Amino acid sequence: MGSTEKLPKMQYRFLGRSGLQVSVISLGGWVTYGGQVGDQLAFDCMKAAYEAGINFFDCAEGYAAGKSEIVMGQAIKKFNWKRNDIVISTKIYWGSAYGDNPVNNGGLSRKHLIEGTNAALDRLQLDYVDLLYCHRPDRNTPIEETVRAMNYLINTGKTFYWGTSEWNSEEIAMAWAVAQRLNLIGPVMEQPQYNLLCREKVEKEFSLLYENYGLGLTIFSPLKTGILTGKYNDGMPDDSRYATAKDAYSTSKAKSFGDEQWQKDIESTKKLKPIADKLGTDTATLAMAWVIKNPNVSSAITGASKVEQVAKSVKALDYLEKLTPELMKEIDDTLGNKPTPLTRRF
Amino acid sequence: MGSTEKLPKMQYRFLGRSGLQVSVISLGGWVTYGGQVGDQLAFDCMKAAYEAGINFFDCAEGYAAGKSEIVMGQAIKKFNWKRNDIVISTKIYWGSAYGDNPVNNGGLSRKHLIEGTNAALDRLQLDYVDLLYCHRPDRNTPIEETVRAMNYLINTGKTFYWGTSEWNSEEIAMAWAVAQRLNLIGPVMEQPQYNLLCREKVEKEFSLLYENYGLGLTIFSPLKTGILTGKYNDGMPDDSRYATAKDAYSTSKAKSFGDEQWQKDIESTKKLKPIADKLGTDTATLAMAWVIKNPNVSSAITGASKVEQVAKSVKALDYLEKLTPELMKEIDDTLGNKPTPLTRRF
Amino acid sequence: MGSTEKLPKMQYRFLGRSGLQVSVISLGGWVTYGGQVGDQLAFDCMKAAYEAGINFFDCAEGYAAGKSEIVMGQAIKKFNWKRNDIVISTKIYWGSAYGDNPVNNGGLSRKHLIEGTNAALDRLQLDYVDLLYCHRPDRNTPIEETVRAMNYLINTGKTFYWGTSEWNSEEIAMAWAVAQRLNLIGPVMEQPQYNLLCREKVEKEFSLLYENYGLGLTIFSPLKTGILTGKYNDGMPDDSRYATAKDAYSTSKAKSFGDEQWQKDIESTKKLKPIADKLGTDTATLAMAWVIKNPNVSSAITGASKVEQVAKSVKALDYLEKLTPELMKEIDDTLGNKPTPLTRRF
Amino acid sequence: MGSTEKLPKMQYRFLGRSGLQVSVISLGGWVTYGGQVGDQLAFDCMKAAYEAGINFFDCAEGYAAGKSEIVMGQAIKKFNWKRNDIVISTKIYWGSAYGDNPVNNGGLSRKHLIEGTNAALDRLQLDYVDLLYCHRPDRNTPIEETVRAMNYLINTGKTFYWGTSEWNSEEIAMAWAVAQRLNLIGPVMEQPQYNLLCREKVEKEFSLLYENYGLGLTIFSPLKTGILTGKYNDGMPDDSRYATAKDAYSTSKAKSFGDEQWQKDIESTKKLKPIADKLGTDTATLAMAWVIKNPNVSSAITGASKVEQVAKSVKALDYLEKLTPELMKEIDDTLGNKPTPLTRRF
Repeated sequence: MGSTEKLPKMQYRFLGRSGLQVSVISLGGWVTYGGQVGDQLAFDCMKAAYEAGINFFDCAEGYAAGKSEIVMGQAIKKFNWKRNDIVISTKIYWGSAYGDNPVNNGGLSRKHLIEGTNAALDRLQLDYVDLLYCHRPDRNTPIEETVRAMNYLINTGKTFYWGTSEWNSEEIAMAWAVAQRLNLIGPVMEQPQYNLLCREKVEKEFSLLYENYGLGLTIFSPLKTGILTGKYNDGMPDDSRYATAKDAYSTSKAKSFGDEQWQKDIESTKKLKPIADKLGTDTATLAMAWVIKNPNVSSAITGASKVEQVAKSVKALDYLEKLTPELMKEIDDTLGNKPTPLTRRF
Repeated sequence: MGSTEKLPKMQYRFLGRSGLQVSVISLGGWVTYGGQVGDQLAFDCMKAAYEAGINFFDCAEGYAAGKSEIVMGQAIKKFNWKRNDIVISTKIYWGSAYGDNPVNNGGLSRKHLIEGTNAALDRLQLDYVDLLYCHRPDRNTPIEETVRAMNYLINTGKTFYWGTSEWNSEEIAMAWAVAQRLNLIGPVMEQPQYNLLCREKVEKEFSLLYENYGLGLTIFSPLKTGILTGKYNDGMPDDSRYATAKDAYSTSKAKSFGDEQWQKDIESTKKLKPIADKLGTDTATLAMAWVIKNPNVSSAITGASKVEQVAKSVKALDYLEKLTPELMKEIDDTLGNKPTPLTRRF
Repeated sequence: MGSTEKLPKMQYRFLGRSGLQVSVISLGGWVTYGGQVGDQLAFDCMKAAYEAGINFFDCAEGYAAGKSEIVMGQAIKKFNWKRNDIVISTKIYWGSAYGDNPVNNGGLSRKHLIEGTNAALDRLQLDYVDLLYCHRPDRNTPIEETVRAMNYLINTGKTFYWGTSEWNSEEIAMAWAVAQRLNLIGPVMEQPQYNLLCREKVEKEFSLLYENYGLGLTIFSPLKTGILTGKYNDGMPDDSRYATAKDAYSTSKAKSFGDEQWQKDIESTKKLKPIADKLGTDTATLAMAWVIKNPNVSSAITGASKVEQVAKSVKALDYLEKLTPELMKEIDDTLGNKPTPLTRRF
Repeated sequence: MGSTEKLPKMQYRFLGRSGLQVSVISLGGWVTYGGQVGDQLAFDCMKAAYEAGINFFDCAEGYAAGKSEIVMGQAIKKFNWKRNDIVISTKIYWGSAYGDNPVNNGGLSRKHLIEGTNAALDRLQLDYVDLLYCHRPDRNTPIEETVRAMNYLINTGKTFYWGTSEWNSEEIAMAWAVAQRLNLIGPVMEQPQYNLLCREKVEKEFSLLYENYGLGLTIFSPLKTGILTGKYNDGMPDDSRYATAKDAYSTSKAKSFGDEQWQKDIESTKKLKPIADKLGTDTATLAMAWVIKNPNVSSAITGASKVEQVAKSVKALDYLEKLTPELMKEIDDTLGNKPTPLTRRF
């Protein structure tokens, strides 16, 4: 990363209505760390990210069966980062996705949330995370049980904030209703998928939550697992994550290659190329810049399986101002997928 | 347990409306462990239970004056079970049932609940239990004092959930009223007796609690202390627990042998034999299957004084589907003791 | 105490509406332990009390400037009493009554309540007391600050219950109002003076608190600092506490010897002699039995500067049943000081 | 400080409606300790203050980038002061004013309040402070997040009370509204600037807060950073803090030398001289006495860069009674800046 001086200055945003600031580009440990990517490469990517001003590192107990947390914890220790300078998250739900015993080792019961968080903190070698997510909704556990357990984890100093990932708007509103009835702390952030090809949830379904609850978003898959880079435009390359799929997740994803949605997405991606050309960049950078142009996005979580990808993500910041209202409209018109936000009067 | 492969697959149920999953058949430390049964036999039974998929082990401070907890704690340590894979309970109320000083060493005062739980955790060599029961109602202690103390134990990480044992429906509803008024956590589960010969509480008295409070049941005595095995049909055998009664409880029970209720129960048990024959099993297995057929039963706590009894209990799972509506009605008609549930309109 | 077998069986009462049981006769460390009385004598008295069934030992940070707590803690350790078998109290308010700096070292501020309790527990060598008292009302501190600090001490495990000493009924009611408004725990017990010569507070002023808040009383001075023994009937004996006054408290009390109230009390004490004669005992025993005849008295705290006094106090239990309604009326008529309790309708 | 015996007796006031007592003159670590002033001089000043009866020592994470807290902690340890005899405060907001990374290292987010307080306690070598301030309002963090975090710090024993510094009346009222809605503890004290030349906030803007919320004031700059001593009446002396400005703060202040407000203040200071003469003292002592004459001022925080300044500040106590209503009116008339307090009816 001898070229960090050429990178645009990192921007920081408040996480929703909270007082916490996260870099608008962040680094996730999804699939990669502890999984496909070797430890040294993971360390290199984290170092590059930190030097580029990224302060938010996102993980989950379910990533690579806990190995992502181990690698991330080792990096924090190895680089001797000050705890107050970084924002670390993890997510609870899929503790045993790759384990032996699914009973009570997943979901959002009080037992798993507390046992799972303690195990995650052990792996991370940390006393606390900054953000703790419920990685999915759990319809088998009452939301009150989950809200109370997340508040227990805040009150015992294991996390500063809690939030959700891939919950729908009703579930988030129900969590807030429970929290408000019991005078407890509600979910501050949600982690949905968001990108040029997947806009309904963020732009329509959640539209009343931003004002009502001050919800912040830490979105994942800003490039829709790589499709928006355009690298699949001409078919699956040999070195893609899917081509070399070794884990259950990638294997299942690989199967979707070529299906109807995939083909539609490839078509959309191709249509974006002329717009990217006009900006003097590629579709990947256009797509990344477009995501963080949305002020409800507090941070876009990026992946990196090569050190260079970190810098590439950060360079999207250079294009934020170039995304003029006219250009944003051109993108909407080109893709034809702009959702109509909900309003308070119907 | 070389024959575990022949056992039916264990089923798990949510404990009432909570997010915790318990095996529908569980193992209790009642009387037996630390008491009549030697330590090695207790270890063997727990191992057999674990291998059969049983994840819930039930204990109490009052069982064998604390020795049951010691043996159970040793087993957990000896077999190196992962804490998150098992659900451990204990119950507070009778700490000094066999001790020297009854004053403040029993009941549901804040003092005994906290001191008793800490002592129980020491005996179990655990940092926390999953479930903590108030073993009986204590009419000398305000329910608010008890509800607050149980919440203190949850907030200090000593248990995940709390519940009751042999409380009546009004007492459970009063605990919920206190909890709701104070924004505290109410009792999630009740542990009553329930079997073919004792149905009023579970099927009638509690009938509104399941929906109102999401109450789960972990029932004890599914075979009514053995009567439903039919082994007393022809009188008291020489090796029965009562014939060899050594502790206060068994001695007192032994005295009931031959009384009016006993005779009535023996008659009912004899009538069940033809139905069991029809299913191709014995009355014990029929009785066990019948208990867990009730969806409000989250788990049936079984005892075992021989390793084989664990497998026998689990085999009842094979008969769950054979208990058709028609057969259930035949049982009701045969016993003539089906209660009428309470309804919300009288 | 080779004669404990001759003592009546100790009685235990619930502390007001709480689930805690205290011996109806208890032992206080007031002035004596750590002060006038030598350590060995204090140990002997505590041992005699314990063997007589006394389970409640009362102390205060202000007794002998903390030395009472030190001696009491040493006794508990020396005799290896089980923590769950005993009820230990202390009181906060006068931490620096004999110290150098009164600023913030007394009263009921959050600072002194927490610092004072931690210091008291250090002196007692205990992790917690069972009962923690606000030793006096503090009109300079808002009751809300005090109620919150006492609840903090309960929530951090430093005490099981909290109460007051020498508060008036309005102050107790105000503490309950604050506690109920904030969903906190209110004061369970009050420690007032109560004896045959001082009845207004317990029998009149507090009369609505017993039912409204379940208030329990642990009364002090059942013999009005010895007057009711009759030992001052003929003037101050040479070995009395006041004659040998060495501490500020006794010196100030000694001054009241001979004043108008003292003379009135001596006259009343003399009038009780014939009634005590009729019961075949002395006025001290009559006075002690009379105090615990009141069911609102959970425990009468006695002092002892000689081992024999412990047994003498306990023997009052033999006279409880002999205090018939007729005899109680005779006492009221003789003293002419029976208050009229408040009622809910005026 | 061989002359402490000549000093007037220190006075203590309750901090607003709370039960905590602070010396009406207190010592701050502002700029000086850890900064311009050497460690030994700081120790000497603290010792002189303590011996003069000052019990309240005020600090902040932002003073001299944390070095003030380090020096203050060393002094407490060195002099072996009893923790209960002193009142220690710190303030959170500007943790990184002089640090490398402003992101999440300042402001009133839950993250910085908790991380900042833990770091401050480490520097102070203390388990807790008595008072914890939000050093400025943070309009980027919801007041609810701040109120909850301050209560977390109280509940985890890191501070006894919390308050604000340089918040306006609406912000303080909003914090109380949040605290009352959630049954949490509100801010007990505010630390504004207050002196003869700066009266609006304390005498007008806050006028309804004293009664409504029991707000106490620990005011700073009683001499308006020295102007009221009269030492700048004839221009900037060579040894003034501003003339020798080495830190960012003093440098910025030095720039204001000579501006319009400065000239106005110098004029006012000159007008006070005859009144001081009449009292037989100087304008500095008059100004200090005038500040603590206001009963809403719980404590006036003074600075000291020479040991003698401590005694000089304390001597203002001698003039409290000499500030008669007539003299106070003369001051008001002379300065012409007396604000009209708000009243409940407009």
